[in-house]
Amino acid sequence: MAMYVVIPNHRIAPEGEPMTEAAHSADVHPFDDAVALDPVAEGVYSGRTHPAYANMVGPFGGITAAVVVRAVLDDARLLGELLSLTVNYAAPVADGTFELTATPVRTNRSTQHWTVELAQDGTVTTTATVVTGLRRPTWSDTEVAMPEVPAAEAVPVRPMPDFVVWARNYEMRYVEGALPDVDTGAQPDSTTTLWVRERPSRPLDVPALAALCDVFYPRVLRRRGTFVPAGTVSLSTYFHAAADTVRAQGDRPLLATARAGVFGGGYFDQSARLWSAGGELLASSHQLVYFKERALSA
Amino acid sequence: MAMYVVIPNHRIAPEGEPMTEAAHSADVHPFDDAVALDPVAEGVYSGRTHPAYANMVGPFGGITAAVVVRAVLDDARLLGELLSLTVNYAAPVADGTFELTATPVRTNRSTQHWTVELAQDGTVTTTATVVTGLRRPTWSDTEVAMPEVPAAEAVPVRPMPDFVVWARNYEMRYVEGALPDVDTGAQPDSTTTLWVRERPSRPLDVPALAALCDVFYPRVLRRRGTFVPAGTVSLSTYFHAAADTVRAQGDRPLLATARAGVFGGGYFDQSARLWSAGGELLASSHQLVYFKERALSA
Repeated sequence: MAMYVVIPNHRIAPEGEPMTEAAHSADVHPFDDAVALDPVAEGVYSGRTHPAYANMVGPFGGITAAVVVRAVLDDARLLGELLSLTVNYAAPVADGTFELTATPVRTNRSTQHWTVELAQDGTVTTTATVVTGLRRPTWSDTEVAMPEVPAAEAVPVRPMPDFVVWARNYEMRYVEGALPDVDTGAQPDSTTTLWVRERPSRPLDVPALAALCDVFYPRVLRRRGTFVPAGTVSLSTYFHAAADTVRAQGDRPLLATARAGVFGGGYFDQSARLWSAGGELLASSHQLVYFKERALSA
Repeated sequence: MAMYVVIPNHRIAPEGEPMTEAAHSADVHPFDDAVALDPVAEGVYSGRTHPAYANMVGPFGGITAAVVVRAVLDDARLLGELLSLTVNYAAPVADGTFELTATPVRTNRSTQHWTVELAQDGTVTTTATVVTGLRRPTWSDTEVAMPEVPAAEAVPVRPMPDFVVWARNYEMRYVEGALPDVDTGAQPDSTTTLWVRERPSRPLDVPALAALCDVFYPRVLRRRGTFVPAGTVSLSTYFHAAADTVRAQGDRPLLATARAGVFGGGYFDQSARLWSAGGELLASSHQLVYFKERALSA
């Protein structure tokens, strides 16, 4: 699972305070390092977890999603562009190497269906399905409205606590619903909206967009105003924009917004949208999240 | 794909006009007939398409989702209840028999991850992933609001055109956004909200709920006010209510509401919620849908 665990009684770093730069080579952005795969056979790759994307238990769920996307998009058998992605976090990925298998189980005239599995020592940690396909000129319209927010430059950077290692890779400017501090208290609405881009900045691509869809801290923290263990069980993202449109964003921040629907029985759902600065809906993403009511001991 | 094709210039049957009853045996509801599976080996079943759930190209996508759910819930290896389901409609299921394989790839203490595949003559038609798990008493809250609507009894039954065979199995009472007629014209909002239950009536269960999540006609028809081919590419549903709560609904209608987010490049997304008459959010469901702009020749 893409576990987020936030220790109680932490203090957010003051706004504008510099964070530790994630370790990375001078030439390769840590994101590209983290999604790099070594080919073993057709559709079979060896990858490894990257310390810059570590979470409390296993890596950031977004980086695992990005690895799945990277494997499919780099496959010589690929038809079209990424349309939809489901990732199921069956078990934490342990630090170290993993094997990824991507299989195009069905290729139609305009769509292609993939199954992907990550395993360590023969044990499955992650299952995924991917649909790719051709985009064709059709009638188009964005029915849902982009939130009306101040420009990114007008919103201060507010980092997550430094021990949330993966979050150091993202520059986050919260418009509403920042990670609760000890004084925030329970909130009636779980909505979080932020401007976000990679840190250090990096031109957007489709794998990075897949990762950004999981950039929200768990909604239950905001509703409860306290810190509870939570982790994504299943994540599904629909990619609305052509890869060219995604690349055209460059390193401008995206507007990311997420809200929960219902909490109960140890699970909640979250729906998110990621918009370009220019108002294009790039992706819609949904997830089911496990949460544990018991508070961590202080 | 779960193809919906609606012929132009059709006329909706007048409200209250009786529809042809779907063919079914006197003892078994057609839904139960349609999701019945014959065991072949552990996790391997033989099933068959049911004429009562036919669509223009292949069966109703909802019935395929229900077959996947039925296989997992009946498996002796099952842990817990249905939590999430993703079904990818890789190809139409041809009329006749299919083979279903359900594999519990990972069993944790509280969750279990499944992969499911439907095939015909060795060719994959459908891939799916399922997460099941234990529900535990935790803090609970429904953050999203149920639409305020008249009671089901106050809303007239409005059937789909009779040639949409699968729709004969559902009693539909549209509160807003009924299937456009030739005179409806383009609409600025794709929302459809209806009271719906099985026809003939049948006590609700989890497989039936999975099918009901796909009961909406394609949103693009409403926006365009005309009839275009469209079919679900990928469907993901989160099940929020315990199986006991689902069964406690009996045969009362559910309130089902769906809306699109963005249309373009030949695809659109849809998000839906299904509520009990008593105001419990039973399921949230999302799908990516292919559509073809070209109008059918009259």
